[in-house]
Amino acid sequence: MLDDSLSTKVDNVLAKLGKALETGDVDAAVNLFQADCYWRDLVSFSWNLKTMEGRDQIRDMLTRQLAAIKPCHFHQDTTELASDDDGVTQGWFEFETDVGRGYGHIRLKNGLIWTLLTTMTELKGHEEPKGNRRLPGAEHGHGKARRTWKEKREQETSELGYATQPYVVVIGGGQGGIALGARLRQLGVPTIIIEKNERPGDSWRKRYKSLCLHDPVWYDHLPYIPFPENWPVFAPKDKIGDWLEMYTKVMELNYWSSTACKSASYDEVKEEWTVVVERDGKEVVLRPKQLVLATGMSGKASIPKFRGQDRFKGEQQHSSQHPGPDAYKDKKVVVIGSNNSAHDICAALWEAGADVTMVQRSSTHIVRSDTLMDIGLGDLYSERAVAAGMTTRKADLIFASLPYKIMHEFQIPLYEKMRERDAAFYEALEKAGFMLDWGADGSGLFMKYLRRGSGYYIDVGACDLIIDGSIKLKSGSDVDHLTGDAVVLKDGTALPAELVVYATGYGSMNGWAADLISKEVADKVGKCWGLGSNTPKDPGPWEGEQRNMWKPTQQQALWFHGGNLHQSRHYSQYLALQLKARKEGIATPVYGLQERHQLG
Amino acid sequence: MLDDSLSTKVDNVLAKLGKALETGDVDAAVNLFQADCYWRDLVSFSWNLKTMEGRDQIRDMLTRQLAAIKPCHFHQDTTELASDDDGVTQGWFEFETDVGRGYGHIRLKNGLIWTLLTTMTELKGHEEPKGNRRLPGAEHGHGKARRTWKEKREQETSELGYATQPYVVVIGGGQGGIALGARLRQLGVPTIIIEKNERPGDSWRKRYKSLCLHDPVWYDHLPYIPFPENWPVFAPKDKIGDWLEMYTKVMELNYWSSTACKSASYDEVKEEWTVVVERDGKEVVLRPKQLVLATGMSGKASIPKFRGQDRFKGEQQHSSQHPGPDAYKDKKVVVIGSNNSAHDICAALWEAGADVTMVQRSSTHIVRSDTLMDIGLGDLYSERAVAAGMTTRKADLIFASLPYKIMHEFQIPLYEKMRERDAAFYEALEKAGFMLDWGADGSGLFMKYLRRGSGYYIDVGACDLIIDGSIKLKSGSDVDHLTGDAVVLKDGTALPAELVVYATGYGSMNGWAADLISKEVADKVGKCWGLGSNTPKDPGPWEGEQRNMWKPTQQQALWFHGGNLHQSRHYSQYLALQLKARKEGIATPVYGLQERHQLG
Repeated sequence: MLDDSLSTKVDNVLAKLGKALETGDVDAAVNLFQADCYWRDLVSFSWNLKTMEGRDQIRDMLTRQLAAIKPCHFHQDTTELASDDDGVTQGWFEFETDVGRGYGHIRLKNGLIWTLLTTMTELKGHEEPKGNRRLPGAEHGHGKARRTWKEKREQETSELGYATQPYVVVIGGGQGGIALGARLRQLGVPTIIIEKNERPGDSWRKRYKSLCLHDPVWYDHLPYIPFPENWPVFAPKDKIGDWLEMYTKVMELNYWSSTACKSASYDEVKEEWTVVVERDGKEVVLRPKQLVLATGMSGKASIPKFRGQDRFKGEQQHSSQHPGPDAYKDKKVVVIGSNNSAHDICAALWEAGADVTMVQRSSTHIVRSDTLMDIGLGDLYSERAVAAGMTTRKADLIFASLPYKIMHEFQIPLYEKMRERDAAFYEALEKAGFMLDWGADGSGLFMKYLRRGSGYYIDVGACDLIIDGSIKLKSGSDVDHLTGDAVVLKDGTALPAELVVYATGYGSMNGWAADLISKEVADKVGKCWGLGSNTPKDPGPWEGEQRNMWKPTQQQALWFHGGNLHQSRHYSQYLALQLKARKEGIATPVYGLQERHQLG
Repeated sequence: MLDDSLSTKVDNVLAKLGKALETGDVDAAVNLFQADCYWRDLVSFSWNLKTMEGRDQIRDMLTRQLAAIKPCHFHQDTTELASDDDGVTQGWFEFETDVGRGYGHIRLKNGLIWTLLTTMTELKGHEEPKGNRRLPGAEHGHGKARRTWKEKREQETSELGYATQPYVVVIGGGQGGIALGARLRQLGVPTIIIEKNERPGDSWRKRYKSLCLHDPVWYDHLPYIPFPENWPVFAPKDKIGDWLEMYTKVMELNYWSSTACKSASYDEVKEEWTVVVERDGKEVVLRPKQLVLATGMSGKASIPKFRGQDRFKGEQQHSSQHPGPDAYKDKKVVVIGSNNSAHDICAALWEAGADVTMVQRSSTHIVRSDTLMDIGLGDLYSERAVAAGMTTRKADLIFASLPYKIMHEFQIPLYEKMRERDAAFYEALEKAGFMLDWGADGSGLFMKYLRRGSGYYIDVGACDLIIDGSIKLKSGSDVDHLTGDAVVLKDGTALPAELVVYATGYGSMNGWAADLISKEVADKVGKCWGLGSNTPKDPGPWEGEQRNMWKPTQQQALWFHGGNLHQSRHYSQYLALQLKARKEGIATPVYGLQERHQLG
């Protein structure tokens, strides 16, 4: 429902909020919120990613930050209509702080603020060269010995990292490092991306050959260059690889491929990192001011230890090493695990004529791709959403506007709907012996992703193969040991095997920090990812944001970046702005720096 | 001015027009046009690019085409408001034919049609896989021995041109061939693009090093993947080269680089071309049904013959061979010509410290880039236009809706405005001895481009160097001969030279047809480009469309494609649909096939 009075309602609250914040009247500001309330801030007020839950936390943040932040010019975005849904009025607004410009989303209940999202969009005086600020390209006029774009680019490429030092080094050149690198380039922050593979996109290309994205195209756009309207819904891995490679080139990233990071250490006095890398067989020492680990939230393979692994005569691979099924026709394969990779690998092996058994050690959350796309993402990320005027930017902000504390409440009804729609399917799966779950509180896939980054399969066909027995299933019993030619379960079953695939997931990102920097720094930073929901694999205490991701950590000048394409796109904006501000010497008073939780 | 009654006015005329066309009532249709009227059709009615001028020509076209075309469902596009400007009402509409869907633009004066544009957008049953028709990418479900995207693409790459034959071969892999290739790929027409250079984009990279686009970014988008909002206004040549290279890759074009076309001949009985190419040093014979020459309207260098060229001891280069100024510091250089390339090359040489003289043999049309962008293109192609809701598609159609016969009338006032704004600049140029013109009828740059493809410079700085004498100017006298170390003009002036650059333009595209196919076919087709305006270098008779471009020619199955990025984008749509229809065996009754004019 859209009407003018909604807009007036939003205007009124924004005017009062703006006035209270401008005059430093914390009480007046806090009183505009209802008792059950949330303010999620992405950089603009907190120089952090932070959700204030309830009036007390909001009061505390404002008391500490207001004088430094100097917010002003709160006004409704006149190009986005306010709307009303079930008694909740929603609106969009712009605002400024002393050093930046911001954009926000507001939800009102009975005239009081229920949720508020404030995000930083740009730093004043450091705007990106886009739209009306595009660079001319051609340099009009004339001058002796001007250099061309190509000459300047070649000079930069040859000097950066040698004669000159980057301000930021990003370790890891997957979608995360690339999206962040693109934003930093636009902001004029000299950056080198370090990638061990030969070509951008190889982290996709080198995975099992049947892999396609499990997220749909509308959810996956990179910043600046969205996928075209003829891009497939679920892009095959090699096609994504090619896209990332071209993107890296045309966005002019300083991308050091075939380069390994050997070590990194921080000099607290000089406030500078020493990063030792090996490029083209030669050691290069980089001295950036900021270090970003973008090695992938699913970067470091985790292989469980079983007795007898050393005696097994066949092949053993982690899923990330599995080359695809071609060499395993007529071979006996046991796949340990029952999440996305396990299902994809089992299905591809069956298609290629292998004899495949999946070992399901614990319950798994399953949703069918079509159903998930329709019910789970359709309102924000779909052709239907595009047709209704939804943009990627707006969808990202709506998504970001839901506080993590109550996000499961929005999710549960969606998954109830999916369960109902596909009831016969789930019944058949359970009949085949598959152990299902819907997350600790029935909130389904996305909460599992945010909490633990694992525990699910988006079904694109493998489930039918389990239901009809094409893929053999052993569930409910963990592996006990391996013999020379079999995997033996705790219940005594021996599964003959010539290949064992461990589709057993990945460790926490700060494992990378331990390897590259030191155990001490990794421990100081603590666990990455997870919300602290106190559900399986996401121990508390409650943090309210994803731990250590895209925001300051306990280790000065060390940052973590990662996640799916959606997160790489959206959160790279906030991380890039935080890095740019530091480069320019802009004051960045961090509110509520997270404490260390859960050694990784 | 926008109001509902305008929309009703357009509705009324469209309803009548639709009814008359559906019922085959030619008179009723013709009577909806005013006496001074134009109907420009791009493929949908004529299977040609054709402008009917006046009621008689419209009557003739309808009489011949209506029964075969079966137009229907004319209705206003409800998403685009009708508007009114100075008594002319404009509207947008959709329609169908028996085999396709179309989109159109209409201008009314006093309730009668002044101009009508009808364009084909897609063939029924052969729609592109975009938006709601996107391919899934991942193949959901399962099946034995399925192949991945990569495996299929590799098979296609290795077999096409050898085990299987392309339906279309495009000679020339610049922006024209690439844009056409992208559209044909989306339409499922097997196509090979033949390019002599090593990499896509090399036709830009290999030109003089200071070259930047003279057209702005909003005018230059390729189909499917527009330039991002941070793309520079006038992109440097190497950056455009990189973009074309990545585009070719991600659009999955079958692009044979480092491949030379040796010969082509058409078998009228088998209705098939034999195209002999040399790829990687090996001869390959291709047998496509359709052949497109996209070798560039500025593809074949034209060097005038002067006495003494064989005795000259320095270097002589056509502008297309000029490597840039680096080797010519302190050298004496004479540049023959005074169009875009001549100015760019002179300025870069001066910047590098050469002693440069420009020989202006005939008058030149000069406009300053900023002024041209603002007054000439600003309403359709600019950040201002984008902010006002203008899309590339709409801008292209508005541009296409102006009949060539009266286009100069729209252009003349714009150039009068430019002349006025930059009066002091033009005065200074003339004072420096520069011979100026504004086109035969004062209609300026774009008409010169359409008529002859030459005769102008878009000033980005070189004019100031001519005004202040940094670039020496000799104008009004042609070259008489060369000596061992000088260029001697007809007025007796000897210009000492160590390098002579012939910035003397390019021949007609059918010169390529003569080289690759035969003199006979080139003569049968006649001149390419030009409107027949009977102005310099565009002899009559009047044709009303650009000769031989993007439409059927007198040689069956031979097509010409080219032009700037705007034309490559827009007209590739119509050429691709014509080729697709032929591939699918859809009847394509061509109305008004142009006669041969002016042997090239």
